[in-house]
Amino acid sequence: MTPEPRPFDDIRALLAEMPGPDPEATAAALQRQGELTKPAGSLGRLEEIAVFLAGWQGAVRPHLDNPLVAVFAGNHGVVAQGVSPFPPSVTRTMVANFMAGGAAINQICKAFDLSLKVYELALEQATGDMTQEPAMDERTCAGTVAFGMEALASEPDLLVLGEMGIGNTTAAAAIYHALYGGEAEDWVGRGTGVDDAGLKRKADAVRAAVARHKTHLSDPLDVLARLGGREIAAMAGAILAARIRRTPVMLDGFVVCSAAAVLQALDARALDHCLVGHVSAERAHREALRKLGKKPILDLDMRLGEGTGAALAVALVKAAIACHNGMATFSEAGVAGRDDG
Amino acid sequence: MTPEPRPFDDIRALLAEMPGPDPEATAAALQRQGELTKPAGSLGRLEEIAVFLAGWQGAVRPHLDNPLVAVFAGNHGVVAQGVSPFPPSVTRTMVANFMAGGAAINQICKAFDLSLKVYELALEQATGDMTQEPAMDERTCAGTVAFGMEALASEPDLLVLGEMGIGNTTAAAAIYHALYGGEAEDWVGRGTGVDDAGLKRKADAVRAAVARHKTHLSDPLDVLARLGGREIAAMAGAILAARIRRTPVMLDGFVVCSAAAVLQALDARALDHCLVGHVSAERAHREALRKLGKKPILDLDMRLGEGTGAALAVALVKAAIACHNGMATFSEAGVAGRDDG
Repeated sequence: MTPEPRPFDDIRALLAEMPGPDPEATAAALQRQGELTKPAGSLGRLEEIAVFLAGWQGAVRPHLDNPLVAVFAGNHGVVAQGVSPFPPSVTRTMVANFMAGGAAINQICKAFDLSLKVYELALEQATGDMTQEPAMDERTCAGTVAFGMEALASEPDLLVLGEMGIGNTTAAAAIYHALYGGEAEDWVGRGTGVDDAGLKRKADAVRAAVARHKTHLSDPLDVLARLGGREIAAMAGAILAARIRRTPVMLDGFVVCSAAAVLQALDARALDHCLVGHVSAERAHREALRKLGKKPILDLDMRLGEGTGAALAVALVKAAIACHNGMATFSEAGVAGRDDG
Repeated sequence: MTPEPRPFDDIRALLAEMPGPDPEATAAALQRQGELTKPAGSLGRLEEIAVFLAGWQGAVRPHLDNPLVAVFAGNHGVVAQGVSPFPPSVTRTMVANFMAGGAAINQICKAFDLSLKVYELALEQATGDMTQEPAMDERTCAGTVAFGMEALASEPDLLVLGEMGIGNTTAAAAIYHALYGGEAEDWVGRGTGVDDAGLKRKADAVRAAVARHKTHLSDPLDVLARLGGREIAAMAGAILAARIRRTPVMLDGFVVCSAAAVLQALDARALDHCLVGHVSAERAHREALRKLGKKPILDLDMRLGEGTGAALAVALVKAAIACHNGMATFSEAGVAGRDDG
């Protein structure tokens, strides 16, 4: 008799078959960088980004023809603990604002020609309050991960992730606390702007949630289900699906990286196809990035979410690709070499 | 009898009449930021940049309709001291590369719709070798400052500065050393990529030049003439002319900031209309920015010059303006306010 399939089996199967970047495209892109009319290495991270994209896209000259900003929105039972100054109804109103083109992410997408898709995840049905019960059962979590994979349906050549969800910095803090230890206080921050009392309520909620579920947190997928949220689970699915397709991903801030952290805890190589767009002003993001081993592209004191930091960083990706593909080589430009050889 | 006019008199006269930003536009822009559909302050530096531009452009809704990247190129007598691995002929070849559209700055300008103008400054006639004589006499220096003011002729709404000039990181290091003290070694770096011996030659040249001219370095304009270069003098003129017109300026890296440093040494308020696009990988730029009191927008390990870091940062300015001008207000979007007030 074969064992009954478990909801997380499909996710584990995908993790087992993650491809790496194309070594030939990587090598050829590196070689091209050395031939362009600039001192070697003088474009710094722009060079790294161009070579990274070449490897994952399997193209010596990487492209940005169909970049997609996918914003996932969910609601959180833990708001009952007074962890946000805004009511959960704001999640839906902001989704409407995205649809109407009035949010920050809309303006950034317009400025840089990025497509935007917003994924509403059962906003009327908040997850369970993690301080009292699992945020999601395994089936809901696995189904939401699978739903998130749909973000790859339009075959973007760069996937940019964003989120919206009143209460979700508390869920993200709980994930980090469960995965990385420390104290609850280490992982909470002011989110949309809680005062000191609100910050204490966030730490209390995170501490209580991790304590309540502590015998079920050794598997990162259980961490995701019990402490996460629908948008976080969906983003984990999107990151994983991108990897299977070898699509590079631009991560955003504190909440997006919590979805990424779950995958990396499952497999240390799981985020090799991901860049991090920015380090958020949400206090613990810097430490989360250290744990993830990722260096952010931007550091602009932003903490809005919606994918705004990641979408901004795509402008630099655009420039990196433009330089890599469009610059003349030394021989094309007839530039003399170094005197010292 | 009136005293005979001195070459620097016109520059000093302009410094005496620098306008400030428009306080009403600044206040109105700040108020608008508070009404946009995001938690207060959550766009971080994008908010600061939008309000800064509003003040200097005198418009509640700032614009980027006519941004200009002005790249100044000059040659330096100090290359005789072996301070660069590249021959001075590369300055002209790179200018030809700019004209042909093959350089990094061309690709970045194309990517973000920025106009590019290249100003060749008597490339066939290198400045004097500052270790032996003044790089420029007063008249040449003042004339070149005046020439740089022409960059404002097309009335750009943002001026982005860049430079090209084999040997010019040595000139810039000498300016910083003269203005800020310390040791010659503190201010030199690898530029386009000198080896250890070349780095020592750079420090020796900077030390010798400052020692040679030391009795004539109390006036920052003498520092500019004796230790600077044509492109550096022209950029000082462009920054000053922009200020007179209240045009905001985006500074680039180590060399551009040396031109700015001269102005700030003349008047502490002289750079109030300037942003700094990036901190260069050229080692001493970080300390120079500390002296200037400026926080760079980007930190991407770049050290190419040409205005590349500054032009990249304009993408973020574009996003800052797009958010400021295009976002819905809370009342337009019907977003509920904070629970706590």
